[in-house]
Amino acid sequence: MDSLSRWRRFKESLCDCPGLGVSVDYSRMLFPPEFFETMGPKIERAFHEMKALEAGAIANPDENRMVGHYWLRSPERAPTAELRRTIEKALRDVKKFARDVHAGRVRPPRSKRFENVLIIGIGGSALGPQFVSRALRTAKDKMRAFFFDNTDPDGIDAVLGQLAQAGGLARTLAVAISKSGATKETRNGMLEAEAAWTRAKLSFPRHAVAVTGDGSELDRHSTVQGWLARFPMWDWVGGRTSELAAVGLLPAALQGVDVDGMLLGARYMDEATRVADARRNPAAVLALMWHHAGGGRGLKDMVVLPYKDRLELFSRYLQQLVMESLGKERDLAGNRVEQGIAVYGNKGSTDQHAYVQQLRDGVNNFFVTFLEVLRDRQGRSLAVEPGVTAGDYLSGFLQGTRRALADKGRESITVTVDHLDAMTIGKLIALYERAVGFYASLAGINAYHQPGVEAGKKAAGVVIELQKKVVAHLRTHRGAAFTSEELAEAIGESAETETVHWVLRHLAANPDHRVKKRPGKSPFSTTYSVA
Amino acid sequence: MDSLSRWRRFKESLCDCPGLGVSVDYSRMLFPPEFFETMGPKIERAFHEMKALEAGAIANPDENRMVGHYWLRSPERAPTAELRRTIEKALRDVKKFARDVHAGRVRPPRSKRFENVLIIGIGGSALGPQFVSRALRTAKDKMRAFFFDNTDPDGIDAVLGQLAQAGGLARTLAVAISKSGATKETRNGMLEAEAAWTRAKLSFPRHAVAVTGDGSELDRHSTVQGWLARFPMWDWVGGRTSELAAVGLLPAALQGVDVDGMLLGARYMDEATRVADARRNPAAVLALMWHHAGGGRGLKDMVVLPYKDRLELFSRYLQQLVMESLGKERDLAGNRVEQGIAVYGNKGSTDQHAYVQQLRDGVNNFFVTFLEVLRDRQGRSLAVEPGVTAGDYLSGFLQGTRRALADKGRESITVTVDHLDAMTIGKLIALYERAVGFYASLAGINAYHQPGVEAGKKAAGVVIELQKKVVAHLRTHRGAAFTSEELAEAIGESAETETVHWVLRHLAANPDHRVKKRPGKSPFSTTYSVA
Repeated sequence: MDSLSRWRRFKESLCDCPGLGVSVDYSRMLFPPEFFETMGPKIERAFHEMKALEAGAIANPDENRMVGHYWLRSPERAPTAELRRTIEKALRDVKKFARDVHAGRVRPPRSKRFENVLIIGIGGSALGPQFVSRALRTAKDKMRAFFFDNTDPDGIDAVLGQLAQAGGLARTLAVAISKSGATKETRNGMLEAEAAWTRAKLSFPRHAVAVTGDGSELDRHSTVQGWLARFPMWDWVGGRTSELAAVGLLPAALQGVDVDGMLLGARYMDEATRVADARRNPAAVLALMWHHAGGGRGLKDMVVLPYKDRLELFSRYLQQLVMESLGKERDLAGNRVEQGIAVYGNKGSTDQHAYVQQLRDGVNNFFVTFLEVLRDRQGRSLAVEPGVTAGDYLSGFLQGTRRALADKGRESITVTVDHLDAMTIGKLIALYERAVGFYASLAGINAYHQPGVEAGKKAAGVVIELQKKVVAHLRTHRGAAFTSEELAEAIGESAETETVHWVLRHLAANPDHRVKKRPGKSPFSTTYSVA
Repeated sequence: MDSLSRWRRFKESLCDCPGLGVSVDYSRMLFPPEFFETMGPKIERAFHEMKALEAGAIANPDENRMVGHYWLRSPERAPTAELRRTIEKALRDVKKFARDVHAGRVRPPRSKRFENVLIIGIGGSALGPQFVSRALRTAKDKMRAFFFDNTDPDGIDAVLGQLAQAGGLARTLAVAISKSGATKETRNGMLEAEAAWTRAKLSFPRHAVAVTGDGSELDRHSTVQGWLARFPMWDWVGGRTSELAAVGLLPAALQGVDVDGMLLGARYMDEATRVADARRNPAAVLALMWHHAGGGRGLKDMVVLPYKDRLELFSRYLQQLVMESLGKERDLAGNRVEQGIAVYGNKGSTDQHAYVQQLRDGVNNFFVTFLEVLRDRQGRSLAVEPGVTAGDYLSGFLQGTRRALADKGRESITVTVDHLDAMTIGKLIALYERAVGFYASLAGINAYHQPGVEAGKKAAGVVIELQKKVVAHLRTHRGAAFTSEELAEAIGESAETETVHWVLRHLAANPDHRVKKRPGKSPFSTTYSVA
C-alpha cells in the first residue's frame, strides 16, 4: 500500500468519538472493502440483542438470568425501581465504608487506622481489583492492596510476609470476595487468613469484610462471626463483569481510587457504544475486527500490548473477560462450534524484546491490539537526547512496531487514550465488556455462562476424596508400605491408580499427613507408608 | 481410554531421571504409537547438532557465532582454556562483588550498606532476573530488587516512588545491563536513573555497576564516569540464554540467591539432557511433544501453568526463550517457513478461573504445560477441612484440570519438580534452553539469531527523526498552526503524513515540546502550533 492510500485508509478507519478521549484505529486490519456491508445484518442483530439485554431480557438463557452489569453505572436503566435502589445503595455503602475506614471511624482494635487491604478472591473476584489497583496506584494511596488469589500455601506465606513488613495484620483489613461464597481457593485463603490473625492474637472478624451473594456460605459465615460489614453481589452480575460492582469498587475505594470517576467513564463509554452505526461505535469496531481477524472462529490470537507499565495486568483481566465469555463449545442453537479467542500480552515496548521476532517473522496466528496512552507522565521529562524524551521513544517504539508488523502483513488495532486515570479505566472496561457482548452476538453464542469450568472442580473434588481414602488406609495399616498400585487395589480404586500415584507423590513431599516414601528402582516401585 | 490403559500409558510416558528431581509426564499428549520411531532420525540429528554446538561449532551461522550458554555451568566444556578462565573469573567476580556489597565493603557514600538493587535492562537483560527474583525472594533477602524494564516515564516514576519508600536512592545500587550497550530503553532508563540520583544530590557513578560487552557504549560510559564495577557479556551468549551469565547471576547474587546452586542445577539438567535416548531425555521429550502438538509448524499455542505463585513469571521468561528462538521466517535452507510457538499463561489454579472455560470447551489451538511443585510450603499446613490442606487443593486442582482437559481431547504435559529452590530454577532454565535447541533442529531453523527485531527499532528511529523535524518546523514558525497534512507537506514528508499525525498527537499531550493543539471538527482538522 502506498503512503497516500495508507493515510487515506487511516482517516477512514479511525473510530474517534468526539469528547470521549478514546479512539480506535483499525486501518491496519486487512478486512475486504465490502466487510462492513457484509456484516451489516449481523451487527444490526448484535445491536438489537444488546438493547434487549440492557432492558432486562434474559440474556443468559442457560441460567435463566438477566445480565445487568451495564446498570451498575446507569442505575436508572435497571428494569425495576427496586434494582435501581439496590445498586445505588450498594455504591453509597461502599463509599461510606471507605470514607469511614480512611477517617479511622471504622478502625482495627489495636491500631488507629487500617493501612493495608488484603483482598481474598480469585478469577472475577481478583483480576479486576488487581488490574485497577496496579493501574491507578500512587504513592499517596489511602491504603496499600495485597492479594490472596490462589490456594498456594507458599504464595499465601509470601503475602503474609509482605504484610508483616508493611505494618502487620493489626493494621490490615481483609476483604473476602466470592459471589457464590463457596469457591474453594477463596475459602482456603480466608481460613489461612483467619489462622494468621489468630496466631497474631488478633480477632479476624474485627478485621474482615465480605463481598458475597445473599445467603451464601460466606454470607452466613461472616454474619455468624460478626464481621465488620458485608457488601452484596447479585446473580445478574457475572464475576468477569463485576469490576464496577462492590467486587471491584470496594477494593478500589479503599485504595483511594476515584470510583465515581470509574463509573462515569464506563457510563460515557456505554453511551458511545450504544450508537447503532458500526463504524462510529468503538465496541462494534473491535468486535467486527476480531471477527474479521479470526474468521469468526477465533483462528487468530489477540495479543494485547499496552505501551504503559501501569496497564500490564490488562491482558490478564481480558483473558478472563474475553476467553471465559467467548470460549464456548456450542452456539445458541446447540451446534458444536468450539469458539473463543486466545488472549495474551504484557506491555510494550518490553514485550518487543521478548517476542516481536516471532510476531514479525514467525507463525502468523495473531493480531495485535496496541494500547497507546498519549500523556507520558506527571510533569515534564528529561531530554535523553537533544529534543527527545523517554516517552517520545515509547511512542516511537509503538509506531515502529506497528509499522514493522504491517510491512509483513501482520494485522493490528490501536486503541488510543489521552491519559490514564480512573475515568479512562472505566472507559476501557466498558469498551471491552460491550465488544465481547457484540462478538458473542456475531458468533451466536452465550457470553454469560461458563459451563466448562465445573468439570475441573468436580475432578478436583474426586482427587480430594481419594486422598482421604489413601490417608485413612495408610493410617489404619500403620507401618505397612504400599506401591501406588498396591494401595489403589487395597482401597478398591484400581481404576484410579494414576490418581493414587499422584496423590501419594504429593503427600510424601509434605509433612502434614505423615506419609513417608521409600524410593524404589522406579517411581512405580516406590512404596509409601505412615509410621 | 479406559483407566487401565491410562495408567499403563502414564507409566510408559513418564520421563523420570533418577536423582534429578524433575520428571516430565507426556501421557496426555495424543501422539501416535509410531511417533518416536518416525521422529528417530530427526532427533538423532538434533543430538548431533547439540553436541557440535556444545563443542564450540558455529551454531549461529548468520552471525558467525558460537553458542556457549552451556559452558557457563560447565566451564571445563568451553572450547578453549581462555574461555574457561573468562567464565570462571566472571563468576568469581560476581560472587566477590555481592559478598563485598553485603558486608558493606562496597558501600554507598551516604549509607552503611546498599539495601536495594535497581536493575535497568529489558528483554534478555530483565526477564531472567525478574523470573529468578520473583521465584526465590524471601523475607530474609540480602537486597530487594526493583526494575526499570521499559522506557515508560510513568513506569520509571512509579519505581522511583517505591525506592523512595524502601530507603531511598542513597541505599540503592543500580545495575545497568545491556549486552550491546546501545539498547535505547536501557539507555533511557539509565539516564533517568542518573537524573534521579543527581536530583537527590547523590553521585550516580558511586551507586552504579554495568553488565555489558567489552567496548560497548555502556562500557565506555561507565568507565569514563568511574562506576563501581563492570561485569562482562560475551557475543557467544545470547540475551535470552544469559540468565546464568553475569546478566542473571549478578542480580541474583545481590538478592542473596544461591547462584552456585542455580549453576549446579543447570549442570545436572545439562547432564540429564545429553542422554542420546529421546524417551529418557526430558528436553528431547519436550521438543518432540511440541513438534507433535503443533505439527512441527507451531499450530498450537503453549499454555504454561505453574501451580505455584512464585513461578508466575516463568511464562514471560519462556515467551522470549521460546518465541524469539523459534519464531523465524526462514529455515536454515532459506525456505520461507514462518515458524514459532506462541507461549502464554500465568499460574494455576488462578488461571483456571480466567480461561479454563475456553481451554476445555473452546477453540482447541493449544497444549498445556502444567508445572507441579510437590512441596507446598516451608513447615506444616492448616487443615482447611478435616485432613485436607490448601496445598492438597492446589494439587487437586492441577490434577482435576489435567483430567477435565484430557476428557475433552485437550493435550497436556506435566513437568513435576520436588521443591522450589535455586537448584530447581537452574534445572528448569537448562531444561527449556535445551528443549528449544532440540526443537530448532527438528524444525531446521537457527534458534540463536533474531533478524526480525531490527525492523521495528529502525522504524522507531524514523519516527524520532521525523519528530525532530516536526518540532523544528513548529518552532521556526512560532504561532503558526498546522494540520497534520499541512505540516507533513511543509516539511516535505507528505508520504509520512500518518506518522506526522501520530507524532503531533503525542507531542500535544505532553508539556516537553510546548506543542499545543486546537481541536478541529475532526482529528484531521485539529491544528498544532508552538506558541
